[in-house]
Amino acid sequence: MKAVQIHSYGDASVLTYTDVEKPTLNPDDVLIRVVASSVNPVDWKIRQGYLKDMLPYDLPVTLGWDVSGIVEEVGASVTRFKKGDAVYSRPDIKRNGTYAEYIAVRESEVACKPKTLSHADSASLPLAGITAWEAIVHVGQTQPGQKVLIHAASGGVGTLAVQLAKWRGAQVIATCSEKNRKLVESLGADQVIDYKSQNFQEIVKDADLVFDTLGGDVQEASFSVLKPGGILVSIVAPPSEEKTKAHNIRSAFIFIEPNAEILQELARLADSGHLRPVVSAEFGLKDIAKAHAASESGRTVGKIVIHVGQP
Amino acid sequence: MKAVQIHSYGDASVLTYTDVEKPTLNPDDVLIRVVASSVNPVDWKIRQGYLKDMLPYDLPVTLGWDVSGIVEEVGASVTRFKKGDAVYSRPDIKRNGTYAEYIAVRESEVACKPKTLSHADSASLPLAGITAWEAIVHVGQTQPGQKVLIHAASGGVGTLAVQLAKWRGAQVIATCSEKNRKLVESLGADQVIDYKSQNFQEIVKDADLVFDTLGGDVQEASFSVLKPGGILVSIVAPPSEEKTKAHNIRSAFIFIEPNAEILQELARLADSGHLRPVVSAEFGLKDIAKAHAASESGRTVGKIVIHVGQP
Repeated sequence: MKAVQIHSYGDASVLTYTDVEKPTLNPDDVLIRVVASSVNPVDWKIRQGYLKDMLPYDLPVTLGWDVSGIVEEVGASVTRFKKGDAVYSRPDIKRNGTYAEYIAVRESEVACKPKTLSHADSASLPLAGITAWEAIVHVGQTQPGQKVLIHAASGGVGTLAVQLAKWRGAQVIATCSEKNRKLVESLGADQVIDYKSQNFQEIVKDADLVFDTLGGDVQEASFSVLKPGGILVSIVAPPSEEKTKAHNIRSAFIFIEPNAEILQELARLADSGHLRPVVSAEFGLKDIAKAHAASESGRTVGKIVIHVGQP
Repeated sequence: MKAVQIHSYGDASVLTYTDVEKPTLNPDDVLIRVVASSVNPVDWKIRQGYLKDMLPYDLPVTLGWDVSGIVEEVGASVTRFKKGDAVYSRPDIKRNGTYAEYIAVRESEVACKPKTLSHADSASLPLAGITAWEAIVHVGQTQPGQKVLIHAASGGVGTLAVQLAKWRGAQVIATCSEKNRKLVESLGADQVIDYKSQNFQEIVKDADLVFDTLGGDVQEASFSVLKPGGILVSIVAPPSEEKTKAHNIRSAFIFIEPNAEILQELARLADSGHLRPVVSAEFGLKDIAKAHAASESGRTVGKIVIHVGQP
């Protein structure tokens, strides 16, 4: 089968479109014929070698950890799925990924895809959606009326986090660039801060939750906008324990795992119109390098989807 | 290039996946590389020969009149588009259609696709969306607070009509089967009537607009639920003039034309979250016969999308 692998770490030129063996199945695996995948920043962070201590791969490895597709075959112990089922998943990042025509995924990591979304839209949801869910719902425990600040709200995770916070009844404040204001408002943000011309530190007070998707200076500046007991949730870097104490807040660093139960919740929200995927760019499997370049630019709105096979 | 043509009228077996010449361009044409198309009932009505008096084709003809794709080339007089633009269209039904790798479309029939939707979603919108717009906005002139009854609200046109009526501020009553109640409610319907167990004639009174997407008995029964001066809009068959007079209502039969201005409005509504495409099935170009069978069954929810090329 065709796949895009890396044989060494480096820039986009290490992405190799090549022929590899079709995956073999463990008894608890589902073989998915990939219709669509999507790009997440973790893909090019792994490609660059930034995560090689945390995730020591035996290269070559196939990147990509979002999939929407069709069940082709099931392992002997699989009970929930059968050939032909339309499914989606955020598979185990330690195994070969979804920039490929087929992927073997543990049954426990697979859910039925949203019934009313295309495969392209469905493939845009798993990794970013589970991340946003963990931050807003699970760790953040967002309650109705709470004030939630979401950084980079027009990005892959941000667009979903705004909608989940709104669905939970929060008052949502979002940062993005001016050109994406309308989009972010349409996702449910009550207040939009143009991060280029405005300083969120001077505008936001007493937030219950700040969702940090950027790290660095933005994370540093986020401590002071939280109310005592509020929580700073980051997906980029662990917030300083010292500052967490000094500001009398809580903080959390989340690195998500596959989770089929959350995927079921996300599918339900998508099918009921509470969660709208934002797909702003699409590429074929041969053009993954272009897709990585777009993602690395940091200017992508919503998600970048990779088309792999016919539905 | 590859295309699906018919060389004679008949059942799905006349659909032929074949090699044809790439279209040549008139000066006002845009050549679109097709990423996705979608199926509309008019496709199989033409295939069966039901419309051959109204639309006399010189067979063979390529079917399919929805497209989302990329501009490959432009004619000499084209000014609004250039190679590489992401566009969508409901092209002229009298020319070869979009079950093909390329299609030549008049510039006046082309619009930029929604920025936040995938090609699959974008391809689901043009024909059904223009139809719903003509019925609800243009001909129906739906006003805030008006009572609007939409038949077959879970179908390709119905799912969009419900959302447009809601966006216009109407009180929306929708018919569908019980299993699709939640979907139709999620699109904005205030009241859902299960057409199998309930009789809409006994429930709906004084409607300002009835949108008939079914014809036959449903159209017949729709006259009596309108208030005087109300309007019955059908996309299936012209309502009886006699009954229109007898009930002191207005009626209209619409058969839509390509319209880039409406496509621009629909893209704006989609990007602002007011219009959510419902895609419930997807097929490759080689499997158009299966897609037609699904559409002809009358049980499809939302739209069926055809994947043609890589984005």
